[in-house]
Amino acid sequence: MKIENPNPLQWNFSKRSQQLQSSAIREILKITMRPEITSFAGGLPSPATFPVERMKAAFDTVLTNQGKIALQYGPTDGYGPLREWVADSLSTDGAKILPEQVLMVSGSQQGLDLLGKVLIDEGSKVLVETPSYLGALQAFSIYGPDFISVPSDEQGLIPSAVEEMGKGARLLYSLPNFQNPTGRTLPLDRRLALVEACARIGLPLIEDDPYGALSYRNDPLPKMLNMNPSGVIYMGSFSKVLTPGIRLGYVVAPVPLIRKMEQAKQAADLHTAQLTQMVVYEAVKDGFLQTHIPTIRKLYADQCQAMLDALQTYFPAGTSWTKPEGGMFIWVTLPAHIDSGALLKEAVEQHVAFVPGAPFYANEPQHNTLRLSFVTVPPEKIRAGIERLGKLIAAKL
Amino acid sequence: MKIENPNPLQWNFSKRSQQLQSSAIREILKITMRPEITSFAGGLPSPATFPVERMKAAFDTVLTNQGKIALQYGPTDGYGPLREWVADSLSTDGAKILPEQVLMVSGSQQGLDLLGKVLIDEGSKVLVETPSYLGALQAFSIYGPDFISVPSDEQGLIPSAVEEMGKGARLLYSLPNFQNPTGRTLPLDRRLALVEACARIGLPLIEDDPYGALSYRNDPLPKMLNMNPSGVIYMGSFSKVLTPGIRLGYVVAPVPLIRKMEQAKQAADLHTAQLTQMVVYEAVKDGFLQTHIPTIRKLYADQCQAMLDALQTYFPAGTSWTKPEGGMFIWVTLPAHIDSGALLKEAVEQHVAFVPGAPFYANEPQHNTLRLSFVTVPPEKIRAGIERLGKLIAAKL
Repeated sequence: MKIENPNPLQWNFSKRSQQLQSSAIREILKITMRPEITSFAGGLPSPATFPVERMKAAFDTVLTNQGKIALQYGPTDGYGPLREWVADSLSTDGAKILPEQVLMVSGSQQGLDLLGKVLIDEGSKVLVETPSYLGALQAFSIYGPDFISVPSDEQGLIPSAVEEMGKGARLLYSLPNFQNPTGRTLPLDRRLALVEACARIGLPLIEDDPYGALSYRNDPLPKMLNMNPSGVIYMGSFSKVLTPGIRLGYVVAPVPLIRKMEQAKQAADLHTAQLTQMVVYEAVKDGFLQTHIPTIRKLYADQCQAMLDALQTYFPAGTSWTKPEGGMFIWVTLPAHIDSGALLKEAVEQHVAFVPGAPFYANEPQHNTLRLSFVTVPPEKIRAGIERLGKLIAAKL
Repeated sequence: MKIENPNPLQWNFSKRSQQLQSSAIREILKITMRPEITSFAGGLPSPATFPVERMKAAFDTVLTNQGKIALQYGPTDGYGPLREWVADSLSTDGAKILPEQVLMVSGSQQGLDLLGKVLIDEGSKVLVETPSYLGALQAFSIYGPDFISVPSDEQGLIPSAVEEMGKGARLLYSLPNFQNPTGRTLPLDRRLALVEACARIGLPLIEDDPYGALSYRNDPLPKMLNMNPSGVIYMGSFSKVLTPGIRLGYVVAPVPLIRKMEQAKQAADLHTAQLTQMVVYEAVKDGFLQTHIPTIRKLYADQCQAMLDALQTYFPAGTSWTKPEGGMFIWVTLPAHIDSGALLKEAVEQHVAFVPGAPFYANEPQHNTLRLSFVTVPPEKIRAGIERLGKLIAAKL
């Protein structure tokens, strides 16, 4: 029942798909999953932080009490009680967030894709930090934007440039807390200045905040969302505070944008798994995260400190790095003549890995940068890995 | 900490997003969820068929034995053992399917979106059946294709027209088994002719098959995939044979297309929930579906027969309908002067609902058609609802 000698298909892919390439990071991760390698390359949270028993109990409760509902199709905008929970958790006295401003998505990466889909035309101006989150650059790229890299320094994006550069742009994408890839945090005065600049020129400001809860101090900075709920699009995720393998995040935005994104989501995947949303609601509704998140902070803060100490001890003069106050990443700048892509090949031979910095730049990559994650490696391995890396760098000076 | 009197944003949505509108069906579903309404409008499987205990046990097993892996990020192409299971279950003696030809997706709706993303440019020719599945029309529409409606009759798409109409097209989308919306099945000779026609002109042939397993006879027709694995893109789903609320489906295609779709998926949502894939594998690996699916078939077959009997009894001369051999839907054609959209308003007043047929046409809608689902309504309610509907129609003759 098979036809004879069919012609092989000549694939005629869409123009937009020429933009697609496999993420440099995910390709590296494949290599670095070999057990002998100490990998600082991952962007994965530590499995030690996953509340397996809590999740197991929540699945059991939901399937026992509401199994037929949880396993049925659900609404595109998300599970009502969870949207309410998100809205409440983001509301402040001055800025109340309503459930209808919340769209549940299949991980915040999907939020980025939907934003690109409904806001970006070919050639649209899109402002990004320097450097910026690679996953956002990838998600937006497929829609053909003209990326504008906003000047940034060790405190993050410099708001004074935005009003001039952002005229006529479709959005500004920012990650203000413990940024991926740099680990830097946008200070309060810059947040206010940025929110004001965007409001003056009517530029939608994306506040991507997957790491915000992972502050090593107990006083995270105010969210830009609450400074101007009618101009800021906030993106949150359960990946870093609960578990990533369930793929659950949310977008909070003014209602006209949420409705448009809801329509785009309906065409993209109908809705996010109803069961997952009900289980996460069951797991978090009683304040579980308030006791759970401090245990993640403690683990990551200790490992961050171990890496900062090791860098101080083993990295040669001429190198510099960020000192994150939360999150998962440290960003290293090497002397200008060292290409971190070439360095990675040698490092892998020495059984240590990191992510080269170049792919994080929308324009003009700086090849002497690299990203280190400290969250999945215990302190003694951090020290040994950083020592080996430091020696490789020192040999090039 | 809130800025004063910000200008409200003037949304500048992308050109492609002008295509977006909320699905007519989902809007109707909102009305028809009122308990007093007998709804034949849904496309939802019957919750009576959901194997809640089996799923609960599978979640428990996976979280107990492999919790940390299941809750971590996973590979974009999907969970290896499940991809193998899919490949094995689709292989025939003459046409072996390999795991690398399988991409796991977040429901087959996502497969449609990814196909559109990588294959359709603005103005690309896309061939569809007359009528066609609304979710596919929506998913593709956002990429701006020029839809060509292939002539179809009560046996489905007529292959002889394809070779001429399909030259230079990017894909042909078909749903050969118990089609949504018509319930019709493409006969074996047409399958072979269609596969051959597409192969001759190098046209990728999409075989969307969410209902294939729900045959009321025990001999489903051979898949087009197995007639030409190098030219057919097959889409499957766990929604109709296990449960839809978990959002899990798969695409089977030649490797160059799978790799391109994998890159698109990485940018769209990184990957489909690892936990869900591991749990579904756990639930199905020992042949569970072979005993479970017959129970779904039995339920739906009985209700289908109840609806066919009721139509025969209560619908007036001048109306006609399909006689499905599987799946979830019956398609009714009314006398040409009756608009099913207007009829729906009256029907809802009589506490009975259906889906008007017009949105299922890519071009030239036939307003005297409508779709009935029989899967969630028990036989006595089917009879009463069809009787009320028949009286409304008879009053218009």
